[in-house]
Amino acid sequence: MAKTNPGRFFEDYTLGQVIEHAVPRTVSGGERALYHALYPARHALYSSDAFAQASGLPKSPIDDLAAFHVVFGKTVPDVSLNAVANLGYAEGRWLKPVYEGDTLRSTSEVIGLKQNSNGKTGVVYVRTRGMNQRDEVVMEYVRWVMVRKRDVDAPAPEAVVPELSKVIDAKDLVIPEGLDFSNYDFTLAGEAHRWGDYEIGETIDHVDGVTLEEAEHMMATRLWQNTAKVHFDATFRPDGQRLIYGGHIISLARALSFNGLANAQMIVGLNGGAHANPAFSGLTVKAWSEVLDKAETDVPGVGAIRLRLVATKGGAPFALRGEDGKYLPEVLLDLDYWALMPV
Amino acid sequence: MAKTNPGRFFEDYTLGQVIEHAVPRTVSGGERALYHALYPARHALYSSDAFAQASGLPKSPIDDLAAFHVVFGKTVPDVSLNAVANLGYAEGRWLKPVYEGDTLRSTSEVIGLKQNSNGKTGVVYVRTRGMNQRDEVVMEYVRWVMVRKRDVDAPAPEAVVPELSKVIDAKDLVIPEGLDFSNYDFTLAGEAHRWGDYEIGETIDHVDGVTLEEAEHMMATRLWQNTAKVHFDATFRPDGQRLIYGGHIISLARALSFNGLANAQMIVGLNGGAHANPAFSGLTVKAWSEVLDKAETDVPGVGAIRLRLVATKGGAPFALRGEDGKYLPEVLLDLDYWALMPV
Amino acid sequence: MAKTNPGRFFEDYTLGQVIEHAVPRTVSGGERALYHALYPARHALYSSDAFAQASGLPKSPIDDLAAFHVVFGKTVPDVSLNAVANLGYAEGRWLKPVYEGDTLRSTSEVIGLKQNSNGKTGVVYVRTRGMNQRDEVVMEYVRWVMVRKRDVDAPAPEAVVPELSKVIDAKDLVIPEGLDFSNYDFTLAGEAHRWGDYEIGETIDHVDGVTLEEAEHMMATRLWQNTAKVHFDATFRPDGQRLIYGGHIISLARALSFNGLANAQMIVGLNGGAHANPAFSGLTVKAWSEVLDKAETDVPGVGAIRLRLVATKGGAPFALRGEDGKYLPEVLLDLDYWALMPV
Repeated sequence: MAKTNPGRFFEDYTLGQVIEHAVPRTVSGGERALYHALYPARHALYSSDAFAQASGLPKSPIDDLAAFHVVFGKTVPDVSLNAVANLGYAEGRWLKPVYEGDTLRSTSEVIGLKQNSNGKTGVVYVRTRGMNQRDEVVMEYVRWVMVRKRDVDAPAPEAVVPELSKVIDAKDLVIPEGLDFSNYDFTLAGEAHRWGDYEIGETIDHVDGVTLEEAEHMMATRLWQNTAKVHFDATFRPDGQRLIYGGHIISLARALSFNGLANAQMIVGLNGGAHANPAFSGLTVKAWSEVLDKAETDVPGVGAIRLRLVATKGGAPFALRGEDGKYLPEVLLDLDYWALMPV
Repeated sequence: MAKTNPGRFFEDYTLGQVIEHAVPRTVSGGERALYHALYPARHALYSSDAFAQASGLPKSPIDDLAAFHVVFGKTVPDVSLNAVANLGYAEGRWLKPVYEGDTLRSTSEVIGLKQNSNGKTGVVYVRTRGMNQRDEVVMEYVRWVMVRKRDVDAPAPEAVVPELSKVIDAKDLVIPEGLDFSNYDFTLAGEAHRWGDYEIGETIDHVDGVTLEEAEHMMATRLWQNTAKVHFDATFRPDGQRLIYGGHIISLARALSFNGLANAQMIVGLNGGAHANPAFSGLTVKAWSEVLDKAETDVPGVGAIRLRLVATKGGAPFALRGEDGKYLPEVLLDLDYWALMPV
Repeated sequence: MAKTNPGRFFEDYTLGQVIEHAVPRTVSGGERALYHALYPARHALYSSDAFAQASGLPKSPIDDLAAFHVVFGKTVPDVSLNAVANLGYAEGRWLKPVYEGDTLRSTSEVIGLKQNSNGKTGVVYVRTRGMNQRDEVVMEYVRWVMVRKRDVDAPAPEAVVPELSKVIDAKDLVIPEGLDFSNYDFTLAGEAHRWGDYEIGETIDHVDGVTLEEAEHMMATRLWQNTAKVHFDATFRPDGQRLIYGGHIISLARALSFNGLANAQMIVGLNGGAHANPAFSGLTVKAWSEVLDKAETDVPGVGAIRLRLVATKGGAPFALRGEDGKYLPEVLLDLDYWALMPV
């Protein structure tokens, strides 16, 4: 019997199945520094222990998206090794900040299955949870992927498509214990714009651009122990290109959004997201945001803001879809998330 | 109103103005390791806790130039986003070593302003200070940059050009508390040459070369949270090249200088420096040094040595300027600094 | 006298000579994170403090090969700066795990010398030991290199070729104090295959591939403070290529071998190794393994497995040598090591 992991095929998933993903990981100052070397990340809460402590946290956490990548990376060998496409995200929530010294592991529960009409592939819906060494859930999200069948003649399972919230209700967002923006230092944070300064419908061109490099996206993707061959092996795709992990574009766009959204400090909800077009080394990525919604929270000084974050490889800001309703070819990412800001 | 940072223009600066720069940063073992991955840095005091402790320090500090980059990086959004040129450095002093766990922030005071005769640009002189979480100044330096005017018709300020020391007097150098080279282990440090073995006027070809890579200079520059577009965005310059952050060349040249100056352990003074020509990926950088001066210090076993450090992209060592007095085209950097050595 | 290190030539070595190598190094979470960013390393014992603690260790050690690279890197300026070829390894044993905060230094003892018949070069055999800050030997290995003579007319030393074990006897392997695999979690480790599931002679194709990048191999090699010019300076070789440090290929192949050997957790013995062909940026590396031997140990739950690890730049798995007995041109590495697995 071959000892290497062939990945799971569509017929290997059953509704309600819980997969414990391998290779727990302890994060340290090394992951923090690498995150700052790989992305132009500048949000002060994730850069400075002193700033985090002034905001009521014990110290500066690992970037929320780094925590997401660690949790996500573990699922790849079990969920997406034979995936044809990563179709979507929903109901993502960050529940506990992750700090240096924490050890993360992940589990995924199969919450939906639907064979495609061609009989060759199916869609698998999983709810993934990341846990720390105290078995506290630090984040959870739903992801659905299209997976190949091993045997096209295998019978189709009963189709179950989970009902997923299009948007997380603001009252379901979890604000980290102790967070307090009442003494927030806007000068140290880098911008004066507070929650009250943003209007629903407002758009922000983040102006800066970053040209993608093979060494950088591979180092980032490896750091999260994501094993998908297509990111690392130039001989894997017929065109000889290494497809860049979608999460690399998410982190890059989020970091670029500092310029205009420096005070959107913590990501607490992931409503949805689409990797609209593939990204490759050599492209220059820019980003723009749109304020989709705003909500007050129970925590004094803390407001929630719902943002669309779009990464592009060119073109004018604020263009998203063509007349046919499809994403424009220059759009790489369309992400919908909730962040916390000082009011 | 646009929420992104347009940078300051010449008329936005006033004499005596103090700018508090954003995004404080806590450094960790991650920054140390990345510094050693990005540069061939081998000075033992910055590599080994045991060596640092044998030299009277509590543990191995962050490289002095890494501390400089962190402090400098914070000033870019406020000082050099609209700079046409980085003109010079002076009166740089390292006042306290920076250790893992320290949180650095920066302020700059405008100490000089002079509009250029073309009326389109002006020169801004700032004295920048980096502070740790105890509000101790860890380093300070003067930098002057040429900045565009937003409005060419804006009135010129009264011209004030600060008097700056060409060279820091050796008695003004600050030697870290507790430093003691009386039990210095030359074998572990890598070379036998002590302070007494160097003669004023002596030149040293550091022999080794490093070819520049996009991923490396971008990771380094991002790590210091330097946001200048020209380093990251290949579409920014008409020639499609990413200009390499001058500090990357400084760190690279200093690391190369280990071979011949392994015992010039700590940098304590920056007398001046010029980025003579721009650097781009693909070039191979070599370095040479010249002993400009030597001075005794009050600390037993510790001598000060003043060095010229030159980085080149080719050509023979020890050639600096042409007959016209201008830097040769292959010279990238001409740096003048004080370091501490065992006598 | 030139102050730069010219490296040692063949006539600079004498039998019994002990060389203390320079630049001790303290390792931290930064080195750990970089190791995981540079290689697809996933062995759980080196990724998770919790997993390591469940295996009886105080926390997750630095990867065994990272420890090897740190120890090895220090020897380069003294042993291989003028080396024509790295000829072999033998009798390598890991004696103590290395943890964050440990400071490593190295010494090498000359145990053999043999001038080549051409009179221009000779072979130097050294036994290198890496020590931590408590002067405990953390690893040792023998390496032999071909080194140029400075003066071809220098007299040849008496030829002494040490008798080296072709294979370390399993009973001489050192198992870390406290190691206990009796509660080993195969799910978290990533594979179900235990020691008992592997048969001598069995071969495993590790399937995954990684395309080599200049920035990655240079960062890795610098991190270990390896100073050989040929890895960093594109102008050094006539063909303009930077030769990749052999240890980069070792670490890459070992990391790739996770897929099929996820439970071969700790490397404890290096029986031998050959860098069969040079590696350069742009190549895609794959790996395969062969089970050469198995042995029980005195420690409950822990078995030893002897593995051949082969890295290639193409070709079919399991092909090693041509009919002429020479390595096939696509073979980069042939390594023979002992690892510890749960029985």
